[in-house]
Amino acid sequence: MNVLIVYAHPEPKSLNGSLKDFSVRHLQAAGHSVQVSDLYGMGWKAVIDASDSTVRARTDRFEPAMESMAAFQNHTQTADITSEQEKLVWADMVILQFPLWWYSMPAILKGWFERVYACGFAYGVGEHSDTRWGDRFGEGMLVGKRAMLIVTAGGWESHYSERGVNGSMNDLLFPIQHGILFYPGIEVLPPHVIYRTGKIDETRFSKECEALAARLDALETDKPIAFRHQNAGDYDMPALTLREGLAVSKHGFDIHINDDEFEKN
Amino acid sequence: MNVLIVYAHPEPKSLNGSLKDFSVRHLQAAGHSVQVSDLYGMGWKAVIDASDSTVRARTDRFEPAMESMAAFQNHTQTADITSEQEKLVWADMVILQFPLWWYSMPAILKGWFERVYACGFAYGVGEHSDTRWGDRFGEGMLVGKRAMLIVTAGGWESHYSERGVNGSMNDLLFPIQHGILFYPGIEVLPPHVIYRTGKIDETRFSKECEALAARLDALETDKPIAFRHQNAGDYDMPALTLREGLAVSKHGFDIHINDDEFEKN
Repeated sequence: MNVLIVYAHPEPKSLNGSLKDFSVRHLQAAGHSVQVSDLYGMGWKAVIDASDSTVRARTDRFEPAMESMAAFQNHTQTADITSEQEKLVWADMVILQFPLWWYSMPAILKGWFERVYACGFAYGVGEHSDTRWGDRFGEGMLVGKRAMLIVTAGGWESHYSERGVNGSMNDLLFPIQHGILFYPGIEVLPPHVIYRTGKIDETRFSKECEALAARLDALETDKPIAFRHQNAGDYDMPALTLREGLAVSKHGFDIHINDDEFEKN
Repeated sequence: MNVLIVYAHPEPKSLNGSLKDFSVRHLQAAGHSVQVSDLYGMGWKAVIDASDSTVRARTDRFEPAMESMAAFQNHTQTADITSEQEKLVWADMVILQFPLWWYSMPAILKGWFERVYACGFAYGVGEHSDTRWGDRFGEGMLVGKRAMLIVTAGGWESHYSERGVNGSMNDLLFPIQHGILFYPGIEVLPPHVIYRTGKIDETRFSKECEALAARLDALETDKPIAFRHQNAGDYDMPALTLREGLAVSKHGFDIHINDDEFEKN
């Protein structure tokens, strides 16, 4: 497999840095091709703005979607954006590795998506009408690829459980896993989360590497989260609300996951 | 009131820019003092890194929390960070205004929190023990302040409803409203969300200004979201899970809101 690791931590000697290095070695030893986008190491420009195209489509005002679509179509994107898009196209498997900062990904990684996910590439594709709201949530340019999050958190697992004070980890990651990865068609494996990262000695680190290795070994076989496809009949158009009768016993983000084999459609 | 508007949109001539200008004029006309942090206009540095302190506490490796705490305590933060912290301390009311990009705030605003929310200022305060997990979620350095989000979204309101394909807007904003604003003690008013921003003519714009004015006029009187206080008895320590018997009929992020006046505690 071609594996792209998009990695966002400022310190190579951190737990995140060590785990990233471990992943690269482990995946390569298993015969995979690996590319790493080390966002801090690359000095990645986090902020989308008018300088992201070499030729402005419209100079009187900057409209991010319109401008990124023109730049994508006319090959006037800056080289850093094109290069990351090429890595995404190359990859069979995308791993995002980051520390959970303020209950989401670091700004530098958010900005990677804002700039690399051009209009016409990751959104704004397919028919947009009152009966079909684009190729998204299960369809799109990145169909056929898989992704997995590797996330570190200082807090305890219970703090992120279903009744934990922070909100559940699955719900906190939903905007990333569903809203960013599944949006252009990427299948998303359950995340690999490492808690209580403040105190990690050698013994614990070895155990974490073992646990991570097990996940890496199963990247091709693990079952993705069963997010519902937008255009497969589960949603009313154009309201895009889940059809009556579906997920009746579920609530919140969970209704968009169909893990009930017996659900009638 | 002292009102701080933290505003994140790259184009002054955008809907966001126009609404921000409207808010400033409207609030000033009502007698409030207003400061605006126009993150794009200021060229705000979005990425937290080792250059955020003028004197490194530790030079062999960069640990964001430890380094930011040392810089906050030793007054060795960079001037841009100190200036934004002073605005937060000055403000009675904090308005975050941004377009919803990939189901969250723009990277430049996320990076504002990562850098301005220093350890010792917005987190890492109060007693940390097995019986008390810091002053947070209702307590902290920013107690007594209020906040409100002003968010624009291209999609329809139904797409962000309880059964909408994107997940509900309240759930999407929870990590910001609860995890970032309520965390250091800020009370959060219900958000003001403007949908279908792609097609806004003069008539619609006037109506949106009216609706926004009504919200701005009620900043001091609107009831905040009733997020549960971490240290008021609702959560078991140190697991930080919601106590058995509370919010039994709720699910997901909603369990952390106590809007049932009759709930037994």
